[in-house]
Amino acid sequence: MSAVLSEPVTPSATTGRALREGAFGNARALSCRECGHQVDLGPQYACPECFGPLEVAYDFPAVTREQIEAGPRNIWRYKALLPVPTDIEESPNTEPGFTRLLRAHNLGDKLGIDRLWVKDDSTNPTHSFKDRVVACALSAARELGATTFACPSTGNLANAVAAAGARAGIRTVVFIPSNLERPKQINSAVYTEQLVAVNGNYDDVNRLASEIAGEEEGWAFVNVNVRPFYAEGSKTLGYEIAEQLGWRLPDQVVIPVASGSQLTKVDKAFQELIALGLVEAKPYKIYGAQASGCSPVATAFKDGVDAIRPVKPDTIAKSLAIGNPADGIYVLDICRRSGGTVEDVSDDEVRDGIVLLARTEGIFTETAGGTTVGVLKKLVESGQLDPTLETVVINTGMGLKTIDAVADRVGPAATIDPSYAAFAATNL
Amino acid sequence: MSAVLSEPVTPSATTGRALREGAFGNARALSCRECGHQVDLGPQYACPECFGPLEVAYDFPAVTREQIEAGPRNIWRYKALLPVPTDIEESPNTEPGFTRLLRAHNLGDKLGIDRLWVKDDSTNPTHSFKDRVVACALSAARELGATTFACPSTGNLANAVAAAGARAGIRTVVFIPSNLERPKQINSAVYTEQLVAVNGNYDDVNRLASEIAGEEEGWAFVNVNVRPFYAEGSKTLGYEIAEQLGWRLPDQVVIPVASGSQLTKVDKAFQELIALGLVEAKPYKIYGAQASGCSPVATAFKDGVDAIRPVKPDTIAKSLAIGNPADGIYVLDICRRSGGTVEDVSDDEVRDGIVLLARTEGIFTETAGGTTVGVLKKLVESGQLDPTLETVVINTGMGLKTIDAVADRVGPAATIDPSYAAFAATNL
Ligand SMILES: Cc1ncc(COP(=O)(O)O)c(C=O)c1O
Ligand SMILES: Cc1ncc(COP(=O)(O)O)c(C=O)c1O
Ligand SMILES: [Zn+2]
Ligand SMILES: [Zn+2]
Repeated sequence: MSAVLSEPVTPSATTGRALREGAFGNARALSCRECGHQVDLGPQYACPECFGPLEVAYDFPAVTREQIEAGPRNIWRYKALLPVPTDIEESPNTEPGFTRLLRAHNLGDKLGIDRLWVKDDSTNPTHSFKDRVVACALSAARELGATTFACPSTGNLANAVAAAGARAGIRTVVFIPSNLERPKQINSAVYTEQLVAVNGNYDDVNRLASEIAGEEEGWAFVNVNVRPFYAEGSKTLGYEIAEQLGWRLPDQVVIPVASGSQLTKVDKAFQELIALGLVEAKPYKIYGAQASGCSPVATAFKDGVDAIRPVKPDTIAKSLAIGNPADGIYVLDICRRSGGTVEDVSDDEVRDGIVLLARTEGIFTETAGGTTVGVLKKLVESGQLDPTLETVVINTGMGLKTIDAVADRVGPAATIDPSYAAFAATNL
Repeated sequence: MSAVLSEPVTPSATTGRALREGAFGNARALSCRECGHQVDLGPQYACPECFGPLEVAYDFPAVTREQIEAGPRNIWRYKALLPVPTDIEESPNTEPGFTRLLRAHNLGDKLGIDRLWVKDDSTNPTHSFKDRVVACALSAARELGATTFACPSTGNLANAVAAAGARAGIRTVVFIPSNLERPKQINSAVYTEQLVAVNGNYDDVNRLASEIAGEEEGWAFVNVNVRPFYAEGSKTLGYEIAEQLGWRLPDQVVIPVASGSQLTKVDKAFQELIALGLVEAKPYKIYGAQASGCSPVATAFKDGVDAIRPVKPDTIAKSLAIGNPADGIYVLDICRRSGGTVEDVSDDEVRDGIVLLARTEGIFTETAGGTTVGVLKKLVESGQLDPTLETVVINTGMGLKTIDAVADRVGPAATIDPSYAAFAATNL
C-alpha cells in the first residue's frame, strides 16, 4: 500500500512506485489495444504512443477447473485471471458475483428459442453487474494507495462505488447527472455523503471526471484512471456463464451496450477460457443491445461503418445512455467478427421487455434489462438470432431502480374491502 | 402431481390422496407443536385435536457436510433437510439462498462488537428472505396439485410469491394492505396480474386469506394452508450461517420478528445441525427485533408474561407490522430459554439503522433491516448482548423497497455545473 496515485496521469506517474509484490496478481503490463505498446501497471488508461485504450495483459499460469471450483462463491474464484493479489479475499469488499444462471423455459417458449438462459446480475450486492467491475477497481485503488474512490456514473456505478467504498472504509465521491432516477440517487446517497449531482448528461459528467482526475491527488476514478483494472471485472460474467453451463460456451450471447466495455470483456473471457484449455474452442456469436434513443453503436453497425458518431441520448434506459461510448468500435468489431449484430429497441419495447421478463421468469429488471430482452425478441423476430442455438441473455440490473418505467403499466387488479364477498365480486 | 387441494382444510382433506413417492423428501408427518399429535403431510396447519400449529416432522438419514457442500449454490443444497422431493432442482423455481455472510468489521467497530457478521438476504431473487420460504411452499403446492398460488402479505412475501409463481407457470393471487409502500406494490404487480389491494392492515388481509382458503378449491396459500411447508424454508438461513462460519454455530444471533416464524426456524435449524452431528453442540442466544410501533412480542418479553396481546401496528417497518403474530409465543420461549431477549426500537432508530448499515458495510436495507440493526445497537448499549461474543445479525430485506424511509435523510451534497471550478467550490 505504499504507492500513491498522483496527477498528471502519465507513464512517469507509474514508474518508481513501490508496489507490493503481487499487487496485480498475474497481470504483467498495460497493453495498448491499438498499437500494442506496453507500459507498467499503474493508474493510466491511454497509450502514451497513440492514445489508444490500455488493457491489462497477463502471464497466466496453468489454471484448472478444480482450482476455480474450490474457490469462494463470488468473483474471487477467478482471481488468478484478474489483476488482483492472491490475498484479495482478505480485504473488505462486497463479494459480488456468482449470480444465478437460470434456464428460461417460459421466456424461451414465448420467443420460440429452444435453449435460453438468463444470467441474472440483479442479485449482486448493489443489484447490478457494476459490483464486479468496482471490486476490481477497488483492489487497484488500494494497491496504488489511492485516498479517494470516485466515478462519473449513469447510476448503477455510483451505487456500486459508494457501497464498496463504505465497506472498504475509503472516502468516496460519486458524480451523477442531476436528472437521474430518484431511486438511484437515494441508493447512492445512503452509502456516501459525497454524492455530487451535475447539471448535464452522462457525457458531461464523464468529461468533468477526467478533468478532476487530472487536477486532484490520490483519486482513483474507477472508470477513468483505473479503467483498465475496472474493466477486467466484467470478464467474470463470461467465466461464470461458461462454468455454470458446465464449462462450455453458449452459441449466442445478448449483452447491453453503454460504453461497450462489458461486451468486449465477455468476449475476452471466452477467449481466455479457450486459450487456457478450460473450455473447448467453438464459434459463438455476440449481440449488442441498445435503446433507440441512444444507439450510436447499433447505428454504426447497421450503416456498415467503423467509426461511431456520438449522439445526445434521449431514452428511459438511462443506465445505457452514453452517447459517446469509449469501447464502441471494439463492440462493432466483436459483433461483426463473431457473426452477431448490434440492435436497438424503442422505449416502449424496453418497457415491454421489463414486463415480459418479470411475467415469464420472475425477474424484475431495470430499463437496461428491458432493452436487452426487447432486443433479444427483435433479433429472433427479424431472423438475426438462430432460435435453435443455445442462447444466453444477460440481465445486468434491477427493476426497483427504474420503477417509473413500468409504474403506469402494472398495478393492483382490484382494491377491495376485507370480506370474502368483496373478493368474490372481483372474479379473480 | 395427482393430489388436489380442496376445501375445507381438515384432516380428511389430506387422506386418500395419491401423492407421488417422496413428494416431501424426508418429511414424515405434520406434528402439533402443542400436543404432539401427528397427521399426514397435507394442506393443513392447525392440529385437529387442540388447534395448535402443525410443524413438519422428519426421519432424517445420515447427512454429511460433504454431501451438502457438493450441492447447488442455493437452498437446495439442504434439500435432505427440507420437505421437498430429491428432484426439486428440476422444477422451475427462483433458486434462492446461499447469500453472503459478510464479516462486518466497520459496523462491529462502531458498535464495539469484536466479531460481527451480517447475513445479507437482500441479494435473494426478489431481495428478501421470503424467496426461501416461498420456494418450499411452491414445492408443496406443486406436489399437492394446487392450481392457484396465493398469499396475504406485508409486501415482501407478495413479491416472492408473484415472482416464483411466474417462473413456475402457476397462477398467482396476492393480497396486500392497500396502504403498502409503492415500490412493493409495483414490484408485485410487475410479476402478476392478480394483485389485490385490501383496505385494512395486514391482520385484516390475513383474516380474509383464511376465509378464501376455506372457500376456494385448489388454492395454496403459502402462509396459511401450506404454512408448515413454507415455514421450513427459513431453516436455510440457520444452515447457511453455520456452514458459512465453517460448520460452527455463532454465540448470538439477532433476528427480526413479524409473525415470528423465521426466528423459530433458525433455532430449529441449529438444533437439527447439532442432532445430525453437522456442528458441535454449544449454547447460543437468540434475540428478536421489533419496531416499537408494532412490538407485541417485545412487550410480552419485557412484561414477563407468556401470552401475546395483539396490537394495532403503527410503524414505518411495514414488513414487520403483524399485530397478532402467529408464532409470537414460541419466539418468547426460544429467546427466554436461550438467554436472549426481544427488544424494540423507534421509527427514528429504524431510519438510523438503515443509514448506519449502508455507511459501514455498503448494504442498503429496508425498514426491517433498520429495525434489526437498531435493535443490535440497543442490545449492546443496554448490556443485553455480550460484545465479546461472536454475533450474527440477519438482514432480511432491501432498501429500495422502503426508499421513503430515508429519502429525507440522505441526498446529494451539491448540485453543480459540469466544470472543475464548480466542483472545487464544493470543497469536497
Ligand atoms: C445496468 C447496466 N447494464 C449495462 C451497462 C453497460 O455497461 P458498459 O458501459 O460496460 O457497456 C450499464 C452501464 O452503466 C448498466 O448500468
Ligand atoms: C424483510 C422481512 N424481514 C422479516 C420478516 C419477519 O418474518 P416472520 O414473519 O417470519 O417473523 C418479514 C416478514 O414479512 C420481512 O418481510
Ligand atoms: Zn498505442
Ligand atoms: Zn395439538
